[in-house]
Amino acid sequence: MAIDITISEVGPRDGLQSIEQIMPTDAKQAWIAAQHAAGFTEIEVGSFVPPKLLPQLADTAEIVSFARTLNGLQVAVLVPNLEGLERAVAAGAHRVTVPFSMSETHSVRNVRKTHAGMLEELARCATFLDTLTDEQRPVFGVALATAFGCTLEGPIPEDRVVRMAARVVRLGVDEVVLADTTGYGNPAQLKHLATGIWGTCGKDRMTRIHLHNTRGQGLANALMAVEVGFTALDASLGGIGGCPFAPGASGNIVTEDLAWLLESMGLDTGIDLEKLLAARALVQEALPGQPLFGFVAEAGLPKTG
Amino acid sequence: MAIDITISEVGPRDGLQSIEQIMPTDAKQAWIAAQHAAGFTEIEVGSFVPPKLLPQLADTAEIVSFARTLNGLQVAVLVPNLEGLERAVAAGAHRVTVPFSMSETHSVRNVRKTHAGMLEELARCATFLDTLTDEQRPVFGVALATAFGCTLEGPIPEDRVVRMAARVVRLGVDEVVLADTTGYGNPAQLKHLATGIWGTCGKDRMTRIHLHNTRGQGLANALMAVEVGFTALDASLGGIGGCPFAPGASGNIVTEDLAWLLESMGLDTGIDLEKLLAARALVQEALPGQPLFGFVAEAGLPKTG
Repeated sequence: MAIDITISEVGPRDGLQSIEQIMPTDAKQAWIAAQHAAGFTEIEVGSFVPPKLLPQLADTAEIVSFARTLNGLQVAVLVPNLEGLERAVAAGAHRVTVPFSMSETHSVRNVRKTHAGMLEELARCATFLDTLTDEQRPVFGVALATAFGCTLEGPIPEDRVVRMAARVVRLGVDEVVLADTTGYGNPAQLKHLATGIWGTCGKDRMTRIHLHNTRGQGLANALMAVEVGFTALDASLGGIGGCPFAPGASGNIVTEDLAWLLESMGLDTGIDLEKLLAARALVQEALPGQPLFGFVAEAGLPKTG
Repeated sequence: MAIDITISEVGPRDGLQSIEQIMPTDAKQAWIAAQHAAGFTEIEVGSFVPPKLLPQLADTAEIVSFARTLNGLQVAVLVPNLEGLERAVAAGAHRVTVPFSMSETHSVRNVRKTHAGMLEELARCATFLDTLTDEQRPVFGVALATAFGCTLEGPIPEDRVVRMAARVVRLGVDEVVLADTTGYGNPAQLKHLATGIWGTCGKDRMTRIHLHNTRGQGLANALMAVEVGFTALDASLGGIGGCPFAPGASGNIVTEDLAWLLESMGLDTGIDLEKLLAARALVQEALPGQPLFGFVAEAGLPKTG
């Protein structure tokens, strides 16, 4: 049966990079295997950044190698630049995403690159990918980070995001990802912004969205995303990465709650919720004391008969 | 300026009835005054049930009397039966809501009345209201409780809810309120169910919805509610009434988060968010140790310039 909506699990990357504990490699493998067993077809398993910067993800090559053994799983990674991309390709990732912050202030602070510098880097990435065989070449995505607003710059002009999306597509990027990195987005903005980008780049180029739940709007935004036509949504098991001092306040949208939202609406995600909750238990065990978020896990699945 | 969406604060009733602490009368008054000052035009201030059952709300008549002094405020209360309605009218409430559980099992367990018994009670209420002058007569609402599912019965057939809504309207009720008492609802169901009721009763008879956030779907449901045409939504400050052992798991949707969702979408609620957060601080002070929920209060309002 065809899946209606793909939930892309990003906890092993976006979640783990945001917490202090370093999850052992075998626990990461067990986590990824458990979500694969629960029906996930795509997991972002790590990031190819210098291990000094993110020791939590230093074992990404090993994790990619393991994840590739899971039948049918699309193994995704994040890379900040060409160097990371080369490592991702060497490791055999099926999909790479480069974050490109729509806030230039954030971009300079985060990866020390202006917008012009980032566009050059993306061009270098595209050139490198052109040298690969079809089998070697991963899907090349660029995430329009902080597209809904930035904690440093405040509001981000929509026309800037639309313009950057168009430039990125012209560089040969396969896919643009709309990313509410900071949890600034609202459903009306989401609809307007997505429509603008689709008008310029075509709807096929942007099917994926990355949402946070900073102000509790995550699932409302997810609903609007699905309504306007996004077919892939990032989410993090237990909302891992949320700030422990402000429960739930800054993590990704919670995979379990998103899966329940979509499934209860009759949209097929391919996910077995019971098995997903089992994966959550396993992750909690591997991260003792780490707060996990989400309402479905607390309330349980509703009575069905 | 006309308000687009009315947020009806139900914390002093639905919130306080669900917690053990009894808030002192003067603190309730300060709370209600603070939300009135923040722009709220309607607050459900209490419930006329026997004080033995809900000592938390024993001072409702006094609270109604105070709330009526606040300029322009619609003072709403919940009543379970004719006796409660008579007390509400004597106290001067502007609006009364009788909950009518679509789950007969829940109805019998909660108010010891079958559906037939409840319909008789509602008829008695309508007859009593007919004896009043226009000035004495409150708006008479009936909440279709557990309309989305019941923790005792499980799923509730949609045609039953539609049929009951029609019968209630024929009895002379001014307004039907769609209520997801148990947090079972999803946006697709909400749209389908509301459309069904509107098809039978007319859209003007049901403009109000009462949502819970049990499985984290509260704001997604709220978004759908606004999209399909509801113009009044119940919410509770700090989600008061959520179970302390499962943070956020069973309370009403959080007023602050709902207000932010709507305002950020450009919908006017008439609410001053800064003043609302001040009211929250005041309530926290009056309920020491009581967990308050909500993401906006934790994350703060976003940078705007």
